[in-house]
Amino acid sequence: MQKDKLIGVDLGGTTIKFAIMTEAGEIQQKWSIRTNVLDDGSHIVPDIIQSINHHLDLYDLPKERIIGIGMGAPGTVDFENGTVRAAYNLNWKETPVEVKSQIEAGTGLPLAIDNDANSAALGEQWRGAGENAQEVVFITLGTGVGGGIIHEGHLMHGATGTAGEVGHMVVKPHGYLCTCGNEGCLEQYASATGVVHIAQDLSEEYVGNSKLKALIDDGEEVTSKIVFDLAKEDDYLANKVVDEVAFYLGYAAGILANTLNPSAIVIGGGVSAAGQFLLNRVQANFEQFAFAPVRKSTAIKLAVLGNDAGAYGAGLLAKQNQAS
Amino acid sequence: MQKDKLIGVDLGGTTIKFAIMTEAGEIQQKWSIRTNVLDDGSHIVPDIIQSINHHLDLYDLPKERIIGIGMGAPGTVDFENGTVRAAYNLNWKETPVEVKSQIEAGTGLPLAIDNDANSAALGEQWRGAGENAQEVVFITLGTGVGGGIIHEGHLMHGATGTAGEVGHMVVKPHGYLCTCGNEGCLEQYASATGVVHIAQDLSEEYVGNSKLKALIDDGEEVTSKIVFDLAKEDDYLANKVVDEVAFYLGYAAGILANTLNPSAIVIGGGVSAAGQFLLNRVQANFEQFAFAPVRKSTAIKLAVLGNDAGAYGAGLLAKQNQAS
Repeated sequence: MQKDKLIGVDLGGTTIKFAIMTEAGEIQQKWSIRTNVLDDGSHIVPDIIQSINHHLDLYDLPKERIIGIGMGAPGTVDFENGTVRAAYNLNWKETPVEVKSQIEAGTGLPLAIDNDANSAALGEQWRGAGENAQEVVFITLGTGVGGGIIHEGHLMHGATGTAGEVGHMVVKPHGYLCTCGNEGCLEQYASATGVVHIAQDLSEEYVGNSKLKALIDDGEEVTSKIVFDLAKEDDYLANKVVDEVAFYLGYAAGILANTLNPSAIVIGGGVSAAGQFLLNRVQANFEQFAFAPVRKSTAIKLAVLGNDAGAYGAGLLAKQNQAS
Repeated sequence: MQKDKLIGVDLGGTTIKFAIMTEAGEIQQKWSIRTNVLDDGSHIVPDIIQSINHHLDLYDLPKERIIGIGMGAPGTVDFENGTVRAAYNLNWKETPVEVKSQIEAGTGLPLAIDNDANSAALGEQWRGAGENAQEVVFITLGTGVGGGIIHEGHLMHGATGTAGEVGHMVVKPHGYLCTCGNEGCLEQYASATGVVHIAQDLSEEYVGNSKLKALIDDGEEVTSKIVFDLAKEDDYLANKVVDEVAFYLGYAAGILANTLNPSAIVIGGGVSAAGQFLLNRVQANFEQFAFAPVRKSTAIKLAVLGNDAGAYGAGLLAKQNQAS
C-alpha cells in the first residue's frame, strides 16, 4: 500500500487542530479537540494519540497510507530530540515533555515537531502567501511577535534553535522594555499589546479631537482592533498609532530583506487582520529601508491561511521528515 | 589518479591571489599577480588561465589531481551562470563577462564563482574564526561594508542573489545618506569612510581638547586608522567616534544574531585591524541588543585570515562545487 497522506497537528493552548492532507497539501479531513490543560497538561499527549487513532479508524484510513505526523507546538521545542519544555499555556513546566517518543509509540507513526511560529511559517510558505517559493520570511503579529525563516524550502534553526525570532529584533534602541529583558524589540511595537501601548503613549501627548483618545481617557478597554477600526474611520490619533506600527514593521521588513533577500515577507497573526490598510503603510516604509535590488524582488504580503497555517506547516514537517 | 587539490583565486582590483590547497584547506602553494585593468580589463581572464596553467606545470601537478577552481570576484556575480558584471575596479562594464566558461575552457577544470565578500565569509567560516561551524555570519569593514551568511556550511544567496548584504542594513533611520540611495545604512557608520564621517561630524560639535579635532581643524587627512590609534591613546573625541562605530556594529550584530542565531559573527576587513580594542566595545553593545538565548550562543569574533580569507573561501567553493 502506498504512503500518500500527511497528518498535521497544531497544538495550542485552547484547541488542538488536526488535518489529514495529501502529499501536495490538499486538506481532506480536519477536526479539532479542546486542549485539556488539567493535571499539569498530562492528558494532552494521550488525547492527541487517541484522537489520531480514532479518526484514522473513522475515515477507514490504514496507517500504511500515512507518511507521518507533523506538529507545531508552543514553548521551547527541541526539534531534534522531539521534546517540548516551558509551554506554560499547556501547563507544561521547564522539564522537557517527551512528545515525539510518546506519540510515535502511541500511533506507530513517525513524528516531526517544531515550534508553532515555525510551523505556521512553513504552512504559509507552502500553501499560502509564499506560493511555495523557496526563500520566505514569516512574521506573525499576535499577543507577541513570532516568525520563521524558510531557506531552500526548509526552516532555518540556527546554531541553537532560535533563528527566526524576529519579534526580538531591536527596532528602537532604548525603546519600550520587552518581556525578554531587552529594550525596543519589534514585539513591543507590532503585537496586539504593542499597538495598545503606542496608543496610550501617543494619547498622553495629544490634545486634539479623537475618539481613540476619548476611549483611553474614559478608561475603556482599548484593543488593537479598535485602534485599526478607528484609524479606518479617519481618527487622527489612531492613524498616528498605525503610522508608528507600520514604521517599525516596514523597518524590520527592510532589514530582513537586505539580509536574507527572500522572495516574500508574509505578515500574519491577529494584528494582520487590519489587512491591506496596514500592509500599504508597511510597504511604504519598507521601500525607505530596503536596499534597491531587494525593493522589487522581495514582496510584502498578507498571510492567507489564517488559523490553518499551523496544520498545513505541520503536514509539510511530516513530509520533509520522510525525505530526511 | 586521485583528485585531491583545490585551487582558490581571489580576484581583486590591484592583485589576483592564487592558492593551491588540500581538500582539508591546507595551503601548499600560493602566489599572486598584478591585476591588469588595461583594455577594459580584457587581459584579466586570460592572465588567470595562463597563471594557473603555468603554476601547475611549475609544481608538476597534473590536472587530474585538481578537484576544481573556486573564485571570489568583485562586482555583481551571477554564481549560477558564472558571469560577472559591473566590476568597475576591474574596468568591467555593465555587460556580463563570461568568467566561468572562459576559465573552464582555458584550464579544462570546473570553476565555481561567488562575490568577494561571500568568498571571504566562506574562508573565515571554514579555516578562520568560524572554526568550521555550520552557522556563521561574516561582516567585512573596508571601504564599504560587505558580508556573507553561511547556513549549514553553505553560502545563502536568497531569492535573487543579494542575501548577506549586511552593509545596507539600516541601523539609523534617516541617518547618513548612503551610496545605495537609502539613509542610515551600516556601511555609512562602520566602513573606513564612515568612521571618518562620524569623526568629522562629532568634531564640529566638540569644543574640548583633542588631537583628533586638531587634525580635522587643520585640514589634515584623517583615516579610520588614525581615529582608532588616537582612541587607544585616550583622545576623548576619538573615543566618542569609536563608541558610535561600536554602537552601530553591536546593534547590527544583535539583529543578525536574533534573526539567524549563528554560532559566530566574524568581523573582518581593514577597519577590524583595530582589533580587540574595537571588539570589546562591539561586544558590550551586542549584549544590549541580543535576545537572551543568543547572547551566549553567538560569539562576536575577529577575523583571523586577513588577506588569505578570499582564497581559502574560493577553495571551499571549488570543493562544494564538486559535491553538488
